[in-house]
Amino acid sequence: MKTIILSVNAGSSSVKVSAYSAERGASPTQLAECQVNGLTALPPILDYSRDGKPVIKGQKVDGKAVNQRDAFSILLKTLIEDDELPQVGGKDDIGIICHRIVHGGDYTKPQLITEDTYYHLEELNDLAPLHNANSLGIVQACIRDLPEARNVACFDSHFHSTIPPHIRTYPINPEIARSNKLRKYGFHGISYAFITRESASLLGKRPDEVNLIALHLGSGASACAIKGGKSWDTSMGLTPLAGLPGATRSGSVDPSLVFHYASDVGKLSPASTKELHISRAEEILNKESGWKALTGTTNFGTIAASDEPAMRLAFDLFVDRICGFVGSYYVSLQGRVDALVFAGGIGEKSGRLRRAVVEQLECLGFGLDGETNRKKLEGVVEDISRANVKHKVLVCATDEQFEMARACAEDDEFWP
Amino acid sequence: MKTIILSVNAGSSSVKVSAYSAERGASPTQLAECQVNGLTALPPILDYSRDGKPVIKGQKVDGKAVNQRDAFSILLKTLIEDDELPQVGGKDDIGIICHRIVHGGDYTKPQLITEDTYYHLEELNDLAPLHNANSLGIVQACIRDLPEARNVACFDSHFHSTIPPHIRTYPINPEIARSNKLRKYGFHGISYAFITRESASLLGKRPDEVNLIALHLGSGASACAIKGGKSWDTSMGLTPLAGLPGATRSGSVDPSLVFHYASDVGKLSPASTKELHISRAEEILNKESGWKALTGTTNFGTIAASDEPAMRLAFDLFVDRICGFVGSYYVSLQGRVDALVFAGGIGEKSGRLRRAVVEQLECLGFGLDGETNRKKLEGVVEDISRANVKHKVLVCATDEQFEMARACAEDDEFWP
Repeated sequence: MKTIILSVNAGSSSVKVSAYSAERGASPTQLAECQVNGLTALPPILDYSRDGKPVIKGQKVDGKAVNQRDAFSILLKTLIEDDELPQVGGKDDIGIICHRIVHGGDYTKPQLITEDTYYHLEELNDLAPLHNANSLGIVQACIRDLPEARNVACFDSHFHSTIPPHIRTYPINPEIARSNKLRKYGFHGISYAFITRESASLLGKRPDEVNLIALHLGSGASACAIKGGKSWDTSMGLTPLAGLPGATRSGSVDPSLVFHYASDVGKLSPASTKELHISRAEEILNKESGWKALTGTTNFGTIAASDEPAMRLAFDLFVDRICGFVGSYYVSLQGRVDALVFAGGIGEKSGRLRRAVVEQLECLGFGLDGETNRKKLEGVVEDISRANVKHKVLVCATDEQFEMARACAEDDEFWP
Repeated sequence: MKTIILSVNAGSSSVKVSAYSAERGASPTQLAECQVNGLTALPPILDYSRDGKPVIKGQKVDGKAVNQRDAFSILLKTLIEDDELPQVGGKDDIGIICHRIVHGGDYTKPQLITEDTYYHLEELNDLAPLHNANSLGIVQACIRDLPEARNVACFDSHFHSTIPPHIRTYPINPEIARSNKLRKYGFHGISYAFITRESASLLGKRPDEVNLIALHLGSGASACAIKGGKSWDTSMGLTPLAGLPGATRSGSVDPSLVFHYASDVGKLSPASTKELHISRAEEILNKESGWKALTGTTNFGTIAASDEPAMRLAFDLFVDRICGFVGSYYVSLQGRVDALVFAGGIGEKSGRLRRAVVEQLECLGFGLDGETNRKKLEGVVEDISRANVKHKVLVCATDEQFEMARACAEDDEFWP
C-alpha cells in the first residue's frame, strides 16, 4: 500500500511542508518541499523545490499579512498545481499529514488526531501557549478541508518521555507539580530521534546501543544526553525556554530575574487571548532576549564572523553555556559517550562555533580535524573528529520533516 | 595593636556571633562563639561555647518572639556577662564587628559602614529582599549601641567579582540589565575564600596557583569553579535562588515554571513591607520548594539515610544536579583541576552523598578512599581521595565567621 505523506512544520514566522511518497512500513522518499518564511516580516517569501532542485525561489507572497494557516493553504496549492508533481494531483492523493507539535504533555508517541480528539491538543496549549498555537490552526484546517487524510500529531517532547524521575522532577511542591503537570518535558525530540538513528548508522551500531551528546543548535537551541538510544536528559524543561539561549530566548536564568526586570511581569501580555494566557515575563524571556537582545541580530552567522565586542560576548556566552551542558551530560553518562553530535542550522553551518566548543572539550577526549570541520557537510552525517581521539565528533543534517514522515510510515496505526 | 573582633552571621532563623582576639595584620584567634537558633520555631534556643568547650547548651530563650536584632542583644550580653571571658568585659572592648551580608551588588571587597554610608546597604535590599534584611537590623543596632566599634560589611558576593563577562552576563536586554543591575553575582563567597586558602595550603600551593571545584552544600547549596584562586563561575546567580536546590529553595528551574504554578505569582507576598517587595513567585521558589517540599524535612541527614521513595528521589535529584555543575566546571576549567572540595553542613557530614557524587565522577578521574570518606572530619581540611587518582577530593570544615574576622584583621583599612 502506497500513499503521499505531508510533513508540516509551523514555527512562529514560517511554515514548511514536505511531500513524501510512502509505503506502509518502509522509509519514505521525499518528492518535494516548500516553505513560506517571514510571516512576521512582510512580505512573506515562498520557496519550492522538487527532487532537490529549486523550482520557485524567493517569490513574494501577494498582498496582506498571512498567518500559519494561510501559509499552509498557499503551500498545499503550490504542490497540487505543480504539473510536474503528478503524485500530488489533488487533495485526495494525500493519505497522511503529520504535524509537528511542540508540546506533547504526557504523550509518549505520535497521536492520530480526529475531530473528536482535537481538544486533547488544545489542552496542551496551557503548557506552551507561545509554541503550540502556531500548529493548531493548520491541524484544524486539515481536519476540515482534507477529510480523506489522516492527521498525526508528532510531538517535540515525546522522545524525552524516557528521562528518569530524578532528572525530570523539579524540587517543588509535588502535589502542585502533579496537578499542574510541572516537570521537565524537553523538546527538539523529533530532531534527536533522527540524529540518534543516523549517528548510530555511521558508527556501525544499532540505535539502542548508542550513547550520544547531541546539540540541536538553531534559533532555538538545546542539548540532549542520549543513553542506549533513549533520551536521558535534555536542557529544555517544562517549556522550550529553559537551557541554552537562542535567537530571542534567554535560556536558563535565575528564576527570580524577571521579577527584577520590570514591575508588571506577572501581568498578561497584550498578545494574550481569551483562550491563551501569556505573561509579560514569558514574552520577555522567550521573545525579547537571546542573542538578538545582546547583538541586534538573530543571524548567528553574522555573530560568529564578527569581532565586534557585543558579538564576541554573545558568541563566547553561547560557547560557555553549550560546553556547560556537554560537561554535565558527560558526567551523567559516566563518560560512556560514543560521539558528540552537532546539528541544527548553527550546528551544521558554523565551523567556528564547533571549533570553539570542541577546543574547550579537549580535556574530555574530544578533538576536531580542522580541515574536515571547515568543509561544508555533504552527506546526512559526517565524522569530523581528529584521528585517535577518545570520543568522536559528528555533524548531522537533521531533518525533522523526514523523521515525522518516517515515524508515520513505519507505524501501522496511522494506515487505514 | 590588639582588639576584639566579633563576626556576626544572621540567617533567616538564626544568629551566630563569634568573638576573636585579633592583632593588626595577623590571623585572629577564636575566643568564644554563641548562637540563637529557631527564631522561626519558638522558643529560640541559645548555645554558647568558650575555648571550644560548651558553656551553655540548648537553653530556651525567655518568653516571646525574638527577631535577629533581639537575638544579637542576647548574644552580646552572654559574651559580656561571662566572667571567664575577661577579654570581652564591656562594649568598649569590641574594636571591629564584621557582618555577613548576602548581597553586595558591585562591591568587590568588604566595606566599612558608618551612619553616613549605611544607606548603601539598604539600596542592596532591592536585589535581595529575602536575604539582606536579616542582617541590617543588627548593623543598625551596632552603629547606634556600640559607637566605639567599627562595623564592616562582608559580602557573600564579592569573592565572585572576578567572574568574566561572558559567564556573568545574562542574554537579556543589555540596557535593562545595566540599569536594573541584572547579572550573575554569586554567593557563599566568604566560604569559598576560606576553602580556597585552606585547600591550597593542604595541596602545598599558593592560593593564587590553585584550581578547584568547590561545593558549599548546606541548607543553601552552591558550586564554584575557582581558577588561580579566583572565582571563575558559580551556580547561584542574580540571587541565591539559581543553581542547586536547597532545603526550601528550588534552585534553577524553567524560568516560566512559576507562572504555571499559580496565577498570582507576580503579586506581592503578604510578607512584603513598604520598603521590601517580595513577589509570591520568589517566596514560593525560595521558601516553599527544595527538599522540604519533596520530602517534608529540611534535614538532609534524614534524607540520605532513608530508603523511602520520596527521600531517594530527593537524594538522587541532588546528586544529579551537583554532578551536573561539577561536569560543567570541569570543562570550564579545561580539566585543570587540583581538587574537588566538599564543604558546608552536608558536604562535611554526609559521606553517603560524597560517595554518590564521586562515583558518578570516576569518568573525570576523581575517586574516593572509602574508609577515609566514612570517618568524621577532624582537621580543617582533609584529603579523602583514593591513591593514584588524577584529581584529589577534599573535605573542608568551612568557617565563614573566621574568614570574616581574618579579612578584617588583615586589612589596614578597618583599623583605626
